[in-house]
Amino acid sequence: MEDATPDAAAAAIETEVRAIGRRAKAAAHALSLADPAAKTQALHRAAALVRERSADIRAANERDMEFARAKGLSEAMLDRLLLTAERIESVAAAVEATADLPDPVGVVTDAWDRPNGLKIERVRTPLGVVGVIYESRPNVTADAGALCLKAGNAAILRGGSESLNSSAALVACLSDALQEAGLPADAVQMIPTRDRAAVGALLRMSDWVDVIVPRGGKSLIERVQREARMPVFAHLEGLCHVYLHEGADPRKAREIALNAKMRRTGVCGAAETLLVDRAIAGDLLPAVAADLIAAGCELRGDAAARALVPDMQAASEQDWFTEYLAPILSVRVVDGLSQAIEHVNHYGSHHTDSIVTEDATAAEAFLKQVDSAIVIHNASTQFADGGEFGMGAEIGISTGRMHARGPVGAEQLCSFKYRVRGAGQTRP
Amino acid sequence: MEDATPDAAAAAIETEVRAIGRRAKAAAHALSLADPAAKTQALHRAAALVRERSADIRAANERDMEFARAKGLSEAMLDRLLLTAERIESVAAAVEATADLPDPVGVVTDAWDRPNGLKIERVRTPLGVVGVIYESRPNVTADAGALCLKAGNAAILRGGSESLNSSAALVACLSDALQEAGLPADAVQMIPTRDRAAVGALLRMSDWVDVIVPRGGKSLIERVQREARMPVFAHLEGLCHVYLHEGADPRKAREIALNAKMRRTGVCGAAETLLVDRAIAGDLLPAVAADLIAAGCELRGDAAARALVPDMQAASEQDWFTEYLAPILSVRVVDGLSQAIEHVNHYGSHHTDSIVTEDATAAEAFLKQVDSAIVIHNASTQFADGGEFGMGAEIGISTGRMHARGPVGAEQLCSFKYRVRGAGQTRP
Repeated sequence: MEDATPDAAAAAIETEVRAIGRRAKAAAHALSLADPAAKTQALHRAAALVRERSADIRAANERDMEFARAKGLSEAMLDRLLLTAERIESVAAAVEATADLPDPVGVVTDAWDRPNGLKIERVRTPLGVVGVIYESRPNVTADAGALCLKAGNAAILRGGSESLNSSAALVACLSDALQEAGLPADAVQMIPTRDRAAVGALLRMSDWVDVIVPRGGKSLIERVQREARMPVFAHLEGLCHVYLHEGADPRKAREIALNAKMRRTGVCGAAETLLVDRAIAGDLLPAVAADLIAAGCELRGDAAARALVPDMQAASEQDWFTEYLAPILSVRVVDGLSQAIEHVNHYGSHHTDSIVTEDATAAEAFLKQVDSAIVIHNASTQFADGGEFGMGAEIGISTGRMHARGPVGAEQLCSFKYRVRGAGQTRP
Repeated sequence: MEDATPDAAAAAIETEVRAIGRRAKAAAHALSLADPAAKTQALHRAAALVRERSADIRAANERDMEFARAKGLSEAMLDRLLLTAERIESVAAAVEATADLPDPVGVVTDAWDRPNGLKIERVRTPLGVVGVIYESRPNVTADAGALCLKAGNAAILRGGSESLNSSAALVACLSDALQEAGLPADAVQMIPTRDRAAVGALLRMSDWVDVIVPRGGKSLIERVQREARMPVFAHLEGLCHVYLHEGADPRKAREIALNAKMRRTGVCGAAETLLVDRAIAGDLLPAVAADLIAAGCELRGDAAARALVPDMQAASEQDWFTEYLAPILSVRVVDGLSQAIEHVNHYGSHHTDSIVTEDATAAEAFLKQVDSAIVIHNASTQFADGGEFGMGAEIGISTGRMHARGPVGAEQLCSFKYRVRGAGQTRP
């Protein structure tokens, strides 16, 4: 292949990716009919294989780390790529937890009878073939693969190029376990090339792939939304707000603001903007700001906020649109509930937003009028997480409005169909 | 504008369509917060206006009919376009029926508590702005507009170019009624030009339009799926099957086959292919075929079918892929359940398929393994209809696997969000 032209190379990648898609579709059909026990067994066996092969997986990861260091990846990205013995154990435990989730397939979610005697049921079915595109985080390979399998879907995984060897080692655990359980090994495949042309080929493959789940930065998501010829679970950024309403309990306000921003700053449920009612800003904002600054947070405020807290940069218009994913928080003093709701709907990303107040009417208005996947009263935005919602594992938090909104767990990776049972009815 | 260049004309259309989109988005926000009673009242008033303005609507329709005749439209298409006094009354009655549907918005579809005390609810919300693209059928203007409104969505309607005046008259009834009820008139708008460039502009407008619903022929749907930069409710063809299993009750088999094909041949739930088990074909097929032929149906069969029914054309491979929407039926003799399921999954359009049998095990296998939006045991495929499902009105039958599958009624035109109520919880 070394002397192949770029066109020939691209054609070869297209052919390879399409072969993966065709195999995935066939595997998805077989998997959709699989016995729930066989899926559970396969996932338990996959977790066992991850533990058994821990040394090999680390060796594969070391090759990836060398490649990534040579490429000059940042320390933060190298840390995401790194697999230690402890992290491999976490990966295995997560696959086990997914194995033990209730099987979503075949569950009847609604049933009713018609006057003519027809009995109608809506029943969960797998979606089909799920393509997952993500960054160089090998744990996502195992998490996403296992969750797709639990929901009866075949997965085509495309991780960041630096994680190629680590991902291959983890995918092998899943597909070997599938085979041992009598299920199609092709139900989990990865795209075995670092070439970015493979992503384009995947996004064009609407005949074999039913949905694409992109996880990653804004540029990846935008590329996927532009190029994908199949439905996409939109995972946009999490530009989350905490709004301290004039009826806020001061203790809750301080604890929630601090936790929403600083518990972990790199997760999509982390708060990026704090809104404070003018009526209480004088009393409350200095204390809230002091907590945040003591925890290492940089504050960027509007004029009213800076008048109350001198240790604050000026926020620009761009700040209100920015997901920092870092210990930085923009702070705005607002004139009340309506302005707060307007701010959230205008600048936010429709992900997760929280109001702190003891005023039930204000809380209900916020929950109703804020157009976000998750709206919260008196709790931290960092609860935006499938595990915290009791869904078990999740493949991400969707900010789209179609099919799955909020945490995408095994149920959300399902479709449904209608079963109609008659006794010979014809339509008049 | 007469001397505008094509580029300038296209730019003007783009600007106009984008202005419609921006107004729709603002209207959708207001409508999402509307009192259910106001929506119901507006729809009742719209129905009354349709009746009051019956003569004007017919005059507008007469202008459309002249345009369509001059254009040389077929009799069938002219008939779809025609509005009589009786049909206008049906339009009004349909809008009234939609008015009286239960309001889907705000309904809590699931609720649970977490161990940390968080109370989580999933609640229905409107989708936002729905773009509907359809053929020259004025009744769809009223049906789709009313259904979108009931679900709290703003609608942008783009009917076939021949129905421009009829649609405008009907849209005016809806928007005038909205205004009288204190709701935004812009919640129902149509694209007021026959220029096809407007469709392209609509499909690019992902910032203002949340979902596109295409209704129409294959080429329209394919164009929409290719060009739309937002989610699409795929309404592909209805290539529906009736499968007469060897355990079929002969009377049910004859009645269901005849009804599924001939009740109405132009609807998407009409059967296009009949599959008959070899074990019973000799006894059953001649009688089934005689019923169909007597009703005016042309049959196209494989060799085995033709050996049993001489009055049958030979079916080509292409016939198995064809949605006739006409009194034509392809007939294949199969070797049993597995071959029937394979045929349906391979040649079908994943719309609606029915098995006729008294064998419960065979029926369950068919219902499970056939990958269609609606799978039926012992009833006609012509029940594939939102009204027959008890959903009230529908905007179509989706053959996609995402969000809405099967009949798309008011509930399916909704999204949802999670409401979380806490007492100051922070995440550890």
